[in-house]
Amino acid sequence: MVNKNRERITSAVTNLDLHDIARAAKTYGVRSFHVVMPLADQKSLIDKILNHWISGAGGRYNPLRREAMEMIQTKNSVADVLDHIRNEGAGVPKTVATSARKQARSIRISAFRDMLRSGEPYLLNFGTAWGLADDFIAHSDYLLNPIRGNSDYNHLSVRSAAAIMLDRLMGMKGEG
Amino acid sequence: MVNKNRERITSAVTNLDLHDIARAAKTYGVRSFHVVMPLADQKSLIDKILNHWISGAGGRYNPLRREAMEMIQTKNSVADVLDHIRNEGAGVPKTVATSARKQARSIRISAFRDMLRSGEPYLLNFGTAWGLADDFIAHSDYLLNPIRGNSDYNHLSVRSAAAIMLDRLMGMKGEG
Repeated sequence: MVNKNRERITSAVTNLDLHDIARAAKTYGVRSFHVVMPLADQKSLIDKILNHWISGAGGRYNPLRREAMEMIQTKNSVADVLDHIRNEGAGVPKTVATSARKQARSIRISAFRDMLRSGEPYLLNFGTAWGLADDFIAHSDYLLNPIRGNSDYNHLSVRSAAAIMLDRLMGMKGEG
Repeated sequence: MVNKNRERITSAVTNLDLHDIARAAKTYGVRSFHVVMPLADQKSLIDKILNHWISGAGGRYNPLRREAMEMIQTKNSVADVLDHIRNEGAGVPKTVATSARKQARSIRISAFRDMLRSGEPYLLNFGTAWGLADDFIAHSDYLLNPIRGNSDYNHLSVRSAAAIMLDRLMGMKGEG
């Protein structure tokens, strides 16, 4: 990720990023949700949260929440995520970056929606803090256009951006 | 709101509901975002959060966040929200309820998108906890279809549901 000054950082875990994105992933039929976190203390915080909602009191109180939280995998790096997916026998996914800033190589979200119909695996990446680092974006196979609302303000939370993106990519619009 | 057992409750404030929904509202050109909270201690918590992000250190650190948080109005009741909008000279809005459960009277989200083009004011309502109370929904002018993903799982957070709903209603899809 980068911080406000576009310096490379590792961002801290936000509890509701885990909940909200897992629930949206489950709603939109995403196969798995990986949280990339190289810091040991932050990883143990994730474990604590997941234990509460999967095997602990949270999961007993709210089994539907447990179902979503069970999707979460914690990994040290994107390379480890790619290994995990490859080891599951799902093939080697293409990586897709998201950003609030359009670049010359950005592709339309609707074009990626069409690509997903092929059934090939894709790893869709979202950044917390001030977004994914430039070199990560540059090395991704694809970069998606930013989400446009209907104003010049483009500072959605990562939770909102992920939810909207999944809806644009996978939502059943015809029934809405 | 209702709780897990569909008993009527007043739900506590969730900090990120304020941030995420204000940011989405700003992104999608919503005129104002009202948080209905009748409990004094919870209202003072909202005030504390808003003060931090509007006149305090948060607003200086992140002016874009301040711009979103400035949209938030805290009100005791939906009747007070309607009064506020009427007093602004924007007319008397029709009330629109959202719910994860479809009813016979639910209308299509796309139909409401068309209605918004008239320029008439609408007050779109989202519930926290286990959703808006049944009698509130029954007394609303309209009820929208639930958001469908592409699975049977329909337990989005209110933050995600509000973001997706605003995108379906106001998003510039042509440019995505």
